[in-house]
Amino acid sequence: MNRNAGKFPFVVEPFSEDFTGCLSWRFLGNQLLRCASLHAGAHGFGFDEMQRSRHVWVLSRLVVELDDMPRTGERYTIETWVSKVYRQFTDRFFSVTGDEGRVYGYAYSVWALIDMDSREPADLAALSQGGALFAVDGRGIPIKGPGRIRVKSDDSVRSLSACYSDLDINGHVNSIRYIEMVLDLFPREYYERGGVKRIETAYCTEAYLGDRLHIYKEEKAGGIVVAEIRKESGDVVARCEVTFRNPDES
Amino acid sequence: MNRNAGKFPFVVEPFSEDFTGCLSWRFLGNQLLRCASLHAGAHGFGFDEMQRSRHVWVLSRLVVELDDMPRTGERYTIETWVSKVYRQFTDRFFSVTGDEGRVYGYAYSVWALIDMDSREPADLAALSQGGALFAVDGRGIPIKGPGRIRVKSDDSVRSLSACYSDLDINGHVNSIRYIEMVLDLFPREYYERGGVKRIETAYCTEAYLGDRLHIYKEEKAGGIVVAEIRKESGDVVARCEVTFRNPDES
Repeated sequence: MNRNAGKFPFVVEPFSEDFTGCLSWRFLGNQLLRCASLHAGAHGFGFDEMQRSRHVWVLSRLVVELDDMPRTGERYTIETWVSKVYRQFTDRFFSVTGDEGRVYGYAYSVWALIDMDSREPADLAALSQGGALFAVDGRGIPIKGPGRIRVKSDDSVRSLSACYSDLDINGHVNSIRYIEMVLDLFPREYYERGGVKRIETAYCTEAYLGDRLHIYKEEKAGGIVVAEIRKESGDVVARCEVTFRNPDES
Repeated sequence: MNRNAGKFPFVVEPFSEDFTGCLSWRFLGNQLLRCASLHAGAHGFGFDEMQRSRHVWVLSRLVVELDDMPRTGERYTIETWVSKVYRQFTDRFFSVTGDEGRVYGYAYSVWALIDMDSREPADLAALSQGGALFAVDGRGIPIKGPGRIRVKSDDSVRSLSACYSDLDINGHVNSIRYIEMVLDLFPREYYERGGVKRIETAYCTEAYLGDRLHIYKEEKAGGIVVAEIRKESGDVVARCEVTFRNPDES
């Protein structure tokens, strides 16, 4: 392990699984964000430190791809590191591994640092002194990074209002909650057939308590589904591409 | 501490808070259930042990009453113990405490052990040898136990369908999720005024993926709101009484 990476051990405990007995995407997703936050904090560029200079980290893309999910009682470790620093974005990678060298999968995230006053992205390359201050570790991960997600449909499949329990401490709808809103569109069989292999999300704008959200979706070949969450105004909140493991191609 | 009680230390970590910066009811509620499960397991009457004799623990009542909620970075400890064993029910208590003797609050839960084949409750007094096998610790807690919740309204204030993300490992809607469904009925001001002091829930029947649920509510004096979640058939799934801290009595 590179000393620049953060390593966080966990066990799948009761009430963190989905109905198939696997760690839930909600729990894992929020743990990824939490590890990112703890790792950045430990290296001096976390939420608190950035807020002191009136900046806030904003998640722009998140890809999680897993061959398998840990199950009740199984131990797993999330490792996370900053892989690259660009001008307006930085890539943070994650691995999820188990005992005896077992690899569950990887995650790829892209973040911007937003100036709370101007709402403009900060120049990360300059701010981090070419990455020197962000504990960069150049190791790659063997999954495809974020691509472009297109949803053409104009017939919403579900509408809902953002509620108290959807919100983070910052008053926005939680990033992982959008993924759940999409996963909630599918019936039991999709999860019993083997569940989800990969979820890619592009975060476009924030939603707040009371915002009316409309969800649009299109099923593609190979178990791939794309979905878009839009506000009443039509503004896109998030786009999501979900790949199911054993699609029913009949 | 009595050696029959289980004691579980935690810290409020990023992505476990609500928008006011307090530990969320979802997170705390599921941690209470998780501590109950771990404590019962450690004493030989947990989920796995009971399933071997084709029994399952079913939550019947849950009361959580807190003077305050821990906030980001604060440490807290959940202690739990079986307080009493009746014929068909057992009382399990919880305390939530912080550093330097600080008390956040208490929880009172009532459980039945259901025979998976007959669907009848087991005789707990006999099964536990008068409580001897359930690590009973008679200490009381200074909050009112569960009472009777009555909701007369027949005009639902919200309807929704139980989704993938609502479910537990057993395929039922998660017990704490019903509490969230009720908390989600209130606007921002209810939480900004000081949030929730006490939530009492009576669990009546289970809901499953796809079940259409209708929520009924009545506001009473003193910041008290009662709500009922019913299935399409009219069967009551859960009743909830929520007490807000600083009601707007204007």
